[in-house]
Amino acid sequence: MDIGAYVDKLTSGARTAARSLAVAGSAQKDEALGLIAEGLAADAEQLKAENKKDLDAAKEAGLSAALIDRLTLDDKRIAKMADAVEEIIALPDPVGEVIDGWVRPNGLKLHRVRAPIGVVAMIYESRPNVTVDAGALCLKSGNASILRGGKESINSNLAIHRVIAAALEKAGLDPSCIQLVETTDREVVTGLLKAQGKVDVVIPRGGKGLIKAVVENSTIPVIKHYEGVCHVYVDEGADLEMARKICFNAKVQRPGVCNAMETMLVHSSAAVEFLPKITAELQEAGCELRGCLRSREISPAITAEATDDDWRAEYLDLILAVRIVDGLDEAIAHINEYGSQHTDSIVTRDFARAEKFVASVDSACVFVNCSTRFSDGGEFGLGAEIGISTEKLHARGPMGLRELTSYKWVAHGSGQLRS
Amino acid sequence: MDIGAYVDKLTSGARTAARSLAVAGSAQKDEALGLIAEGLAADAEQLKAENKKDLDAAKEAGLSAALIDRLTLDDKRIAKMADAVEEIIALPDPVGEVIDGWVRPNGLKLHRVRAPIGVVAMIYESRPNVTVDAGALCLKSGNASILRGGKESINSNLAIHRVIAAALEKAGLDPSCIQLVETTDREVVTGLLKAQGKVDVVIPRGGKGLIKAVVENSTIPVIKHYEGVCHVYVDEGADLEMARKICFNAKVQRPGVCNAMETMLVHSSAAVEFLPKITAELQEAGCELRGCLRSREISPAITAEATDDDWRAEYLDLILAVRIVDGLDEAIAHINEYGSQHTDSIVTRDFARAEKFVASVDSACVFVNCSTRFSDGGEFGLGAEIGISTEKLHARGPMGLRELTSYKWVAHGSGQLRS
Repeated sequence: MDIGAYVDKLTSGARTAARSLAVAGSAQKDEALGLIAEGLAADAEQLKAENKKDLDAAKEAGLSAALIDRLTLDDKRIAKMADAVEEIIALPDPVGEVIDGWVRPNGLKLHRVRAPIGVVAMIYESRPNVTVDAGALCLKSGNASILRGGKESINSNLAIHRVIAAALEKAGLDPSCIQLVETTDREVVTGLLKAQGKVDVVIPRGGKGLIKAVVENSTIPVIKHYEGVCHVYVDEGADLEMARKICFNAKVQRPGVCNAMETMLVHSSAAVEFLPKITAELQEAGCELRGCLRSREISPAITAEATDDDWRAEYLDLILAVRIVDGLDEAIAHINEYGSQHTDSIVTRDFARAEKFVASVDSACVFVNCSTRFSDGGEFGLGAEIGISTEKLHARGPMGLRELTSYKWVAHGSGQLRS
Repeated sequence: MDIGAYVDKLTSGARTAARSLAVAGSAQKDEALGLIAEGLAADAEQLKAENKKDLDAAKEAGLSAALIDRLTLDDKRIAKMADAVEEIIALPDPVGEVIDGWVRPNGLKLHRVRAPIGVVAMIYESRPNVTVDAGALCLKSGNASILRGGKESINSNLAIHRVIAAALEKAGLDPSCIQLVETTDREVVTGLLKAQGKVDVVIPRGGKGLIKAVVENSTIPVIKHYEGVCHVYVDEGADLEMARKICFNAKVQRPGVCNAMETMLVHSSAAVEFLPKITAELQEAGCELRGCLRSREISPAITAEATDDDWRAEYLDLILAVRIVDGLDEAIAHINEYGSQHTDSIVTRDFARAEKFVASVDSACVFVNCSTRFSDGGEFGLGAEIGISTEKLHARGPMGLRELTSYKWVAHGSGQLRS
């Protein structure tokens, strides 16, 4: 296989498709999405059969149970994929939305209008549902997508993509609006990452290694979805009952996700009253606790000393780092030093300290008196999300349809000249 | 000099400064800017003396007259630099602006708030005024900046930076809010481009070679200010008198800038009436014309045949490529194929074709019935601009203060938990 030629074929097909998709109406895009949802349901047996090939290979290769779980398609999951597409249909089309506009003194009517980005390359793990989600979100936002899932999911993805391509064609759209990289050769990824002017953005989703490799090898813009080292800071004078519930929820409700709390910071004046209770409760829920020396003196449930690595850790597990701080400034400094600029929350009664925390913590999501677990496109009311960006440019935090668009400046004149 | 240690010093100083600047009020930032403007005026003699060193070296090195002109500081230009800072003071502070917000069903009050990006590295040519502009725009938008001007301007930049540093200190701000790379060693640039997590964005401004080198070597996000291959399309049935004035203005009013017209597209039905007159007028203004075969048959002023290179050329000079097209679709296809996604204008009387042009031309600025020369932050009413972005992500088109910011999601709760 000539990889260079294949990459060219993918990218030039995507560009042509993107041009037509940019002017396709919402009705046509929604029709295609409806056909995708229908097709997934109709082809469930075929999808499961192809998925079984991947599962057999994965088991033979000794993949972990967690990876195999993510790879698995069953009737329930196929129905969920179709439901996700229906949810995207229900969202408003962001293309054409007027962001703002005004009239210049010379009479030029200026407005900023949302427009598709163009060609989006998604590089992700072996999770077949991402093939559907990413393709559908890109389609709705008017972007042609080139999807490259993990090699372990290739048969599942090919089967899903057959459904997608048939739906696009039936709706009268260019089938290249959503393309799948049909080989697991890594050179294709390398080629896509260097396709300046042909691919407009790369969105990697997955483990740190994958994201690091994309960032270091790409010469085209990348929107990272990196780790979440999230904090809750329990302030002096906080409602400790509220703090206890928030910390427990932030750690335990779903520990394996990026918006779960990984480090709890507690003001020294609250520690004696607060720490024994919350740590006992967390321990009872199966959570391992690693803390600073002062916290260990107060709470026997904190069974290990936290190291510098713990302050930087995204455990994604029932493990929590605990640190006592002597004030808001120390809490902010800790978060800005060790956090990942994802989501951080303060529990406080003090208005001024809440304001200072919000202004000073340099994170995508900064919360007052609620669980870090709300950092989520659905919870924010954005509808389906393509991920949570840890970038500062373009899109920060949960990325929905709107964040998958660019904009253009449109001016309507009547013969204006520059003097 | 230990380059690695120097880059670390620059970036860690910038990060610390950025943290304090993010929470500095508008009054303090404006005070510092006022002191910079004052300082430039007060130190004019010193600035000219240091600039003379650069000019002498440039002349000895045989630099072109155009480069030497850009490098030169005289009283008028120093006054202009100070005026530019005063204009930035007059602009509203973008930090803290609430972009949007709503209340979720669970009572969580959510809002998106503009926040500084953090640490901005500017890499630019030997134009000392950019040192002032870029530093001032970054300061006002709450970003710490690391400025690296062309090596030919080092003495001028060092002198300007002494004024800036003194002003920052006097206003009680960290002098590292605006840092200058004090060596011309290129390794510092290489180090900055790899400083992931330490520099948040790189903005290169200058020639194609500079920008290409930055894009290809950077592992941190880049906002490019690339070329402008701008078009005017004269539609069938257009007001040809309006078209003539717009095309003349777009080409001749200031040919050396990125928003000047480089290719004129004319509908075949308008060509016989339109072309002879406009081309004669352009020729009289000293413009060289290169056209397609059909255009040359109509107009003797088109003295050369245009090649593929001409369709892609950013002349930045009194040269124009001319092409006759048989309809709107051909015009759009030409622009999307050969243009640089900067600024393109249609002259038309037809509403539907205007709408189609606006939707289909994939450029940062798409105009109807006005000169391409309006593609400018000042003309758009954005105030001072740091450049015109040719990116699709983050900022597209003219970049003012607002485009130098990111945002954060802020949620105010009352103990909300995720279930």
